[in-house]
Amino acid sequence: MPKLWNETIDAHRAAVREAILDTTAKLVAQGGLRSVTMSQIAEQTGIGRATLYKYFADIEAVLRAWHERQVAAHLQQLAGIRDQDGTAMERLRAALEAYAGIARQRHGGELAALLHQGEHVTHAERHLHGMLQHLLAEAVEAGDVRSDVPPAELAQYCLHALTAATALTSQAAVTRLVAVTLDGLRPVP
Amino acid sequence: MPKLWNETIDAHRAAVREAILDTTAKLVAQGGLRSVTMSQIAEQTGIGRATLYKYFADIEAVLRAWHERQVAAHLQQLAGIRDQDGTAMERLRAALEAYAGIARQRHGGELAALLHQGEHVTHAERHLHGMLQHLLAEAVEAGDVRSDVPPAELAQYCLHALTAATALTSQAAVTRLVAVTLDGLRPVP
Repeated sequence: MPKLWNETIDAHRAAVREAILDTTAKLVAQGGLRSVTMSQIAEQTGIGRATLYKYFADIEAVLRAWHERQVAAHLQQLAGIRDQDGTAMERLRAALEAYAGIARQRHGGELAALLHQGEHVTHAERHLHGMLQHLLAEAVEAGDVRSDVPPAELAQYCLHALTAATALTSQAAVTRLVAVTLDGLRPVP
Repeated sequence: MPKLWNETIDAHRAAVREAILDTTAKLVAQGGLRSVTMSQIAEQTGIGRATLYKYFADIEAVLRAWHERQVAAHLQQLAGIRDQDGTAMERLRAALEAYAGIARQRHGGELAALLHQGEHVTHAERHLHGMLQHLLAEAVEAGDVRSDVPPAELAQYCLHALTAATALTSQAAVTRLVAVTLDGLRPVP
């Protein structure tokens, strides 16, 4: 049990919630989305089942919250890359590599598809699309990306092409996928 | 009512089933997946509700059957393109254009995501991936496609990149998407 006794009730609740989602993340990574149960989560978080049910009504609610936290963390990671030093093209390349890495972690199956139908994913995808569109427009201006296709469409192309990483089994293949995707962006001679 | 009385019972059943799926296709095109009801289908097919329920247990079963038929027709269309005359590159381009057009028709939402989780889609995607991989290998041999990335990975890239067509609203944008995707396949200078 984490040492939370000196915290306020709110901070305590937030910390327990985070601990539950940390356990969930670990269990999902170990056995996949379908494998996770409320009993496992309670036990490995070091709380009672009754306490867990005060935080989340069922396993779907836990997974949804975990997924929301995951998506938010990925967005933050990509925003960090966007705000790095370097040319637009360098930051674009780094962002696409990071996104391909994220896509590679994506789970398959019906449950994953349902989680991905959530509002938070739609919102995150819109946000991410805006981020890429902005980087692409900068790179077009620098002459590093083709100018015959609107940056908004190029951003859609990138996001979709890189989801092919989900099916890839090696990091080398992911690197090749990013290279091919970037080659599609080259200025037309 | 279609004139079916001279047919055998089996042919009659098959014809009624096709008529039900034709009506379903029309209704989906008009109002989207969620809008379709069993009553509408029965009425517009010209059969009683009781008859309809002898063919399909519920609306989900109808939509699944309609989707299976749709996917099979798309595969057949793409196989036809593969078997046309022309260089591998010409047939590849035609197949990718057709696939982008198909992807553009894809419906959004939870129900569409569930239909897409079906076995028949997994099977069709594997089939389609094989078809493209074959065309790509031919085009690599002809020197029209890059040889530094395995054709199996290039096929994944193409299929994913072109699903960006789902979000596009004009045919011109779809044409640009196909062009960008093809540019990613170019031999590296």
